[in-house]
Parts: sequence; C-alpha cells; structure tokens
Amino acid sequence: MANIVAVDIGGTQIRAALFTSNNTTPIHHKRTATHADGEDPFERLVAVIESVLPAEPVDVISVAAPGPLDPQNGVIFSTPNIPGWIEFPLVAKLEERLRIPTCLGNDANLAALGEWRYGAGQGHHDLLYLTISTGIGGGVIVKDQLLLGARGLAGELGHITVLPDGPLCSCGQRGHLEAVASGPAIAAYVNEQLAAGRPSILKPGPLTGRQVAEAAQQGDALAREAFIRAGEFLGQAVADFLHMFNPSIVILGGGVSQSGSLFIETLKESTRRHVMDAGFLKDLIITTAQLGDNAGLIGALVQGQLKLERPSL
Amino acid sequence: MANIVAVDIGGTQIRAALFTSNNTTPIHHKRTATHADGEDPFERLVAVIESVLPAEPVDVISVAAPGPLDPQNGVIFSTPNIPGWIEFPLVAKLEERLRIPTCLGNDANLAALGEWRYGAGQGHHDLLYLTISTGIGGGVIVKDQLLLGARGLAGELGHITVLPDGPLCSCGQRGHLEAVASGPAIAAYVNEQLAAGRPSILKPGPLTGRQVAEAAQQGDALAREAFIRAGEFLGQAVADFLHMFNPSIVILGGGVSQSGSLFIETLKESTRRHVMDAGFLKDLIITTAQLGDNAGLIGALVQGQLKLERPSL
Repeated sequence: MANIVAVDIGGTQIRAALFTSNNTTPIHHKRTATHADGEDPFERLVAVIESVLPAEPVDVISVAAPGPLDPQNGVIFSTPNIPGWIEFPLVAKLEERLRIPTCLGNDANLAALGEWRYGAGQGHHDLLYLTISTGIGGGVIVKDQLLLGARGLAGELGHITVLPDGPLCSCGQRGHLEAVASGPAIAAYVNEQLAAGRPSILKPGPLTGRQVAEAAQQGDALAREAFIRAGEFLGQAVADFLHMFNPSIVILGGGVSQSGSLFIETLKESTRRHVMDAGFLKDLIITTAQLGDNAGLIGALVQGQLKLERPSL
Repeated sequence: MANIVAVDIGGTQIRAALFTSNNTTPIHHKRTATHADGEDPFERLVAVIESVLPAEPVDVISVAAPGPLDPQNGVIFSTPNIPGWIEFPLVAKLEERLRIPTCLGNDANLAALGEWRYGAGQGHHDLLYLTISTGIGGGVIVKDQLLLGARGLAGELGHITVLPDGPLCSCGQRGHLEAVASGPAIAAYVNEQLAAGRPSILKPGPLTGRQVAEAAQQGDALAREAFIRAGEFLGQAVADFLHMFNPSIVILGGGVSQSGSLFIETLKESTRRHVMDAGFLKDLIITTAQLGDNAGLIGALVQGQLKLERPSL
C-alpha cells in the first residue's frame, strides 16, 4: 500500500494531505498560511508536510504550484505571491530536507489530471481542462498523458490571443483570453462601461467577478452583457482548442465557471458557432469540473500515483 | 526486410512508391493524374499502387490524403478536388481489393512525421509543423507521437482565429490564420489594396502568392507589406502554439515558406514579440522544412514504419 503526500501551494495557503494508494479521502489533511511574519515560506511548507507524515515510509511527495515551472527538473521559475522563489529548485530542496522522492507540477496541469482520473473526465483519453478565475490556466491530456512539451511549459491555454491589440494581460501581452474572460477582466469591462455612463445596479470602483455574477443573476443588463461577452470569447478560444487538440471532453473549472447558466450556455453556443467542422463536436462533452477547491490537491495525488505507476516517465 | 508502399493523394496527382525498411530512396516510384475522363479516381489509385507492387509480399500500404479524415477507421470524410469521396472508407476498400494491411493519415500530419524522422526535426521529441501554401495545415508531435486527438482531427493549426471577424476562411469561419496568411490570402490582400488605388508593379486581377513573392523580391512596397502582414499574423499564431504545445522546434513547410527571408524573419520576430515568457523561446528552433514536395510521401512512409514498429498504436 503506497503512501503519497500531496501538497497544494497557493498564494494564501498551503495544503498538505496524506493519502494511501488510490483512496481519495486523505488520512491526514493540514493547511497553513503561505505567509507569516518574517517566516520563510519554504520552512512553512516543510512544517505542514511534516505535520501529515506517518510513522511508516512515504513513497512520494507530489507538489502542485502555480506559475511557470519546470516539472522535469522540479524548479519553480517564478510563482505569484512568493516573490523570493525565482529559479527555485523546490524538488531538490525538499528531497534534501525530507529524504523522500518528490515531484512537482503546475497546478492547472495537475487539476486536469485530477479531473481525468477522479472527476468529470473519467473514461476520457483526450481531455482539455480550463480553469477560469483570477487568471485562466489549463491542462491537456493526450492519450492518457499530461501534455508537458519540451520544457514542461505546455497547456498555457489562457494565453491564446483572442483579440489582437486588446486589453493588457497579466503576462504583458495584449488580447489574451485571460485578459478578456477572467474574473478581473469581466469586472474591468463593467467598470469601463460604468465610466462611460452605462446604467447598472453596480457602482464604479473595485469590483470582483463574483459581484458581477450576482448582479447578472439579479438581471442587471450590463452585468449580463459582461458575462455574455466573456462567454463569446471563451467559445472562440475553445473552438480553436478543438481544432488543435480534438479532445472528447472540455472541462471548465475555477470560480467564474460557477457564474450560472447564462455564462456556460453562451460559451457552448459560441463554441458551436466557431467550430470549422461538425466532426469536432461529435460526441464532444463540455461540462463543469467536479473537484472544486480540491482540484490542485487531488491533481497532485494523481501526479504522485502516476510517478509510482509509470516510473519511466 | 519490410516492404512499404507509400501513397500521396493530391488534388492533381497521385504518387505511389515502394520502399524497403528504413531506406528513404524508393525502389519504384510512379505518379498518375488524380482525374482522367470518366475514370473513377479510386481505380486510378489502385492502378498506380499496383504499378509499384513487387513480387514479394508488401507489409503495409500507407496513404496520405488531404482534408478531414478518420485515421483510426481509415475513412475520408471529404477531400478537396475529389467530390465523390464523402465518408469514403478508403482503407477498407483498398484492403478488400489488394489484400494488404493499409493505413491512412492526413497529409499535413504525416508531413510532420516525415520531418520528425527524416527532415528538419530529427532528434526532437516535441515538434510543430506548419505548411503554408494554398491552405495552412499542420501536425504536432508530442513525445515522439503524432497528436491525433479523440477522432483523429487534431492539428488543424491553420484554423486558429487570429483576427476575429476577419476575412472568410475556406472552412466557412472568419479570421482564421489560413484566411490571412495562406498564398491566396496574401494575393487577396494585394488585390484589395490595388483596388483601393495603392501603387504597385502588380496589376489587379487573378494573382498568386508566388507572383506577390516575386514582386516583393523586386522591392515592390505593397508586395513586401503583404508578406510582412502575413508574417506578423503567423508570429502571433506561432506564439499561441508555443504556449499550448511548448515544442522544441517549429518547422515551416509549403510554398509560401519559400518566399524569402523577409517573410521568415518577420514571422520569427513577430513570434518573439508575442510570446508570454522567454522560457518558451529557450533552445527553440524555427526553421524551414527539408522534405519539400516529398513531405507527404515520406510522411506516409514513416506512418507505415510506425505501424510495423508500434502495432499496438
């Protein structure tokens, strides 16, 4: 019976959980704030992992982290909200400290693995996962394997250009999907329209995607338009992804995907309208994710399982 | 020693060649027109294959064909220039007639395989191939395997949206890469500008990409602008592809890729400018294809070799 410690490093909290074999209910599960006064986030990470370690040996520690990283070599290039982790050899440092084989993956990539094995994507061999929240991330499964690419950077689905010369993206480019359809992008569009004098129950100022979603559910025309606009762009991008990857399922995760049927139906309708050939829609499922907030943690579990099942990869 | 018959079905000619083992110089090589008065193209196909069959048994016939097709089941959904081939079970029909195991692939997909094993992509495990001519097709190699997707339709790289509401694409959608950067798209842009009164050594009327390329080489400002415009859009799309697939090499095939350094350099510079993170450019090669007109035939050879090497796939 294998022991796997799965870890999900977020900007505000770090979660660690001990799993045995293929059981997705953890034996132990702990969380801690990523940051605390004057403390090194790496030490906080080690402490929360140690707090779930059993007496018996652990086979693998599997870590999910945001941001560009190198899964082959276990190096985080940079990660939002932990400014000190630049070219940070996380796997080597954890292995040196804890003496347990460790692996690392991009959290959106791993969420795709989680949905593939335990969520909405079970039974699918070619899967596309898109998480739409503060940013837009993704993961692609090709023939039951996570698409990593030459340097482990593949699957950055939020960074496809959908509107050349459009709004500035977090990555510094313009008009990416993330810049027009993430939560902040939806809120920014509403603010822009409010500034232009459009009527709405929403008031100008700091706005979240969730507030816009609530206004849309109350029938606010501007809020509804903002979600329709985002859904339109997402459908255009999803059609492009279908042409490239031809998956049998597209799974939508992240908070914005929970914004109600207006958003999802617009996205589906836009996808159908933008597809080049009906063949891409045949037997295609477009659905929402099932793992919710646990996507990163369960994804890390699956990465750990695969590490033990397919040691050569 | 394996005998492989490779076949490349084009709109104007069908080529068939007999290869032995891993030798890329064919033992026999024949071509025939795809169409002749009142003759069935399938019979013309069978005849040209029979003309290269040796006395000894053949292990596999491997066919490259354009257009949407199902490589798993060997069915051509539809193919340009052969109007009768709709949902055409080519593999079953050839196997019934010739009693030789047969396989089928999309010609741009197979050209990617050809470049991977025998062309510019040798030694690369994650490769992206883009053919830019009358249309824009593509093929993606992921971890030494051709990306096919759930129904064998993956790799339609010409059908990524680069200019929403842009020019009409051959597929019926708007603003796809093919609609702004293929040979006919470059010629159409020049004609549009000529109609608006722009000076040029080119004259309004039926124009080809090649004529525009020649004018560009003579320094014609409008022709140069047309290639720069196409190269800009291609760079935007290639950056998107890098974010999705993170290949170690991008190979450019097709006639338009031979249009000179202005086009290729604009494309490379535009790619660099549109990429979200320098990590995607590290050790990346962007280069032209090596197999030229033989890409489809050599690609079919490689598909045949793989069929024998990896029978389970």
